[in-house]
Amino acid sequence: MIERAINLRIPGPTPLSDEVRKDMGKQVINHRGKEFGIILKSTVERLKSVFDTNDDIFLFTASGTGGVEAAIVNTLSRYDQVLGFTYGSFGDRFIEIAETFGVNVMENDTEWGKAVSPEDVAEELSYFPNAKAVLIVHNETSTAQTVRLDEISAVIRRHREEVNPDLLFLVDGISSLGITPFKSSQWGIDVAITGSQKGLRVPPALAIVTVSERAWWASQHNDIPRYYWDFKKAKQFLEKDSPQTPFTPAVLEINALNNELERMLEQGLNMVYARQIETADHVRAGLENMGFELFGDQETASVGLTAIHYEHADQAVEKLMKMGLDIAGGQGKLAGGILRFGHMGAFTKDEIDKALDIVEKTI
Amino acid sequence: MIERAINLRIPGPTPLSDEVRKDMGKQVINHRGKEFGIILKSTVERLKSVFDTNDDIFLFTASGTGGVEAAIVNTLSRYDQVLGFTYGSFGDRFIEIAETFGVNVMENDTEWGKAVSPEDVAEELSYFPNAKAVLIVHNETSTAQTVRLDEISAVIRRHREEVNPDLLFLVDGISSLGITPFKSSQWGIDVAITGSQKGLRVPPALAIVTVSERAWWASQHNDIPRYYWDFKKAKQFLEKDSPQTPFTPAVLEINALNNELERMLEQGLNMVYARQIETADHVRAGLENMGFELFGDQETASVGLTAIHYEHADQAVEKLMKMGLDIAGGQGKLAGGILRFGHMGAFTKDEIDKALDIVEKTI
Repeated sequence: MIERAINLRIPGPTPLSDEVRKDMGKQVINHRGKEFGIILKSTVERLKSVFDTNDDIFLFTASGTGGVEAAIVNTLSRYDQVLGFTYGSFGDRFIEIAETFGVNVMENDTEWGKAVSPEDVAEELSYFPNAKAVLIVHNETSTAQTVRLDEISAVIRRHREEVNPDLLFLVDGISSLGITPFKSSQWGIDVAITGSQKGLRVPPALAIVTVSERAWWASQHNDIPRYYWDFKKAKQFLEKDSPQTPFTPAVLEINALNNELERMLEQGLNMVYARQIETADHVRAGLENMGFELFGDQETASVGLTAIHYEHADQAVEKLMKMGLDIAGGQGKLAGGILRFGHMGAFTKDEIDKALDIVEKTI
Repeated sequence: MIERAINLRIPGPTPLSDEVRKDMGKQVINHRGKEFGIILKSTVERLKSVFDTNDDIFLFTASGTGGVEAAIVNTLSRYDQVLGFTYGSFGDRFIEIAETFGVNVMENDTEWGKAVSPEDVAEELSYFPNAKAVLIVHNETSTAQTVRLDEISAVIRRHREEVNPDLLFLVDGISSLGITPFKSSQWGIDVAITGSQKGLRVPPALAIVTVSERAWWASQHNDIPRYYWDFKKAKQFLEKDSPQTPFTPAVLEINALNNELERMLEQGLNMVYARQIETADHVRAGLENMGFELFGDQETASVGLTAIHYEHADQAVEKLMKMGLDIAGGQGKLAGGILRFGHMGAFTKDEIDKALDIVEKTI
């Protein structure tokens, strides 16, 4: 594969640090052995810090989307009425997955470029007070927007207290974990999903889920069959004397994740999040200085990527690619109309300036 | 992770060559870009040589078991009557997965340590002539046995010609592809499944499936819902101008697989298979010379691993581990009674001798 000068990009995995690449070049080990058990246990403990929870955490060898499917098939039933909030293509996907398994989704669409508001969630819950679950994406990479999950969680909490204590809260945090603060327990999230390749900064291969008490209860009373994604099986294997996964896992990615999490926690998550904001601000200021117009509601703009209005996006992507900069156009209804610059992970100011310089000279 | 002197082992992934480790240490690339499209296309073409087929081939980011689940949920329906042949724990798992999704499995058990015979398959088909499918594991790592898939395929062919042309033949080849000859098309296999970490010699993270015309037909008439495992979605993305996977894939493993397949095909598959037999013969001769008794029917012994009778297997595994040799005891009903030496992949005579030397000095 070609090595690029600058690994600022989206979509696609976050660029890997030298330490992660070194870990990925290691020899594989026996996934039923004690050494792997120690690594897996440590990884789960460190993930609890990032999700800010004491809930169960399981790792599946899969794309993040596999984790979304796992959340649905373990907690919901056919004909369940759930509320699906969407403001981009990953929200649409969340709903599509639920519908595929026979769940009855009341869809709430927010204009692309804006984020679902807490008021939207409250209103929808007032129409469907007995909904079984709320499905939402924390950060939409398709539109570079992030919902205010703290405020939405307050709406959920109130609804549980006043109307339906069993309401499930399922959150796709694939592109938010490790990038922006996440408080799974405090926010009352029942299943939070992430992947290894965004804010957790290791290669794609792992889907990670948290499972609350409420989600466990739901999983004992739902009717969608599952085998590979089964939470119960994952728990049985994780609780062996030497922790395991039910099926041969991506051992290299798990070991790399364990070590990357150690570095992130040593640095301090607040510092990681603060640097992410700095990076986003720096990218945006640079693009605005060049005269580009930022896309979408800037009050809820994502700190993980930046979108700008751009008419001939496909050609720009090609041109920038030739200059060593791998960015993305729009997805779905935004195809051709925007450019998206990913900046998840750790970048130096210098790297960003180099990338901006290429943009300035190329498009 | 600790580097071991000798990487002869089972279960767990096949040891990686230096070339593969170098590939795994590379920077990740955009999985929606052209470069990845070229790599994915080449990987699929090379896999066609190993499966010996022109059927569709899809890669899922998952453990091999995910591929088994994909085979079932894409081709079978609830209440379908299928024949499940088992001679070890992976055969049991194949049946368990089918039953999880509501398939009605007629189970045929062969004593552990022997392989299902073509006569068993013919007899069972005579009792259930309208069975929808035959499920079988090609190589059982739990018992170190391999079925004679060529002869079983002749039984299937005859049954299709004489009784039921729609009979599906689903084969778990997770631990056989790349180790022993496989002729997916000639043997009339509808879905063959493998993983990346056994005979294909790269790290675990990929499940790979072939899909025949008959399997496609079945997939259009079955009723088990699927999203992540959906063959149709995989085909849509693979057939884009620049081939893709529907969800973020394990890009490093796919690139490493593409390059490892190139090396295997350059060497020649017949040479790869011949060397695997040499390795197995060498390991067995060594163990027999030490006075160990080989476990199971030697007529159908696997070339990928060797099992011996051993009473205190758990202690032996611990002792050998301390000496740098990572082997396995028995699984399920063979727990404690056998030792299993994996020898999938490329080993020099010298490496095997070193491993045998450790065994001789330790247990």
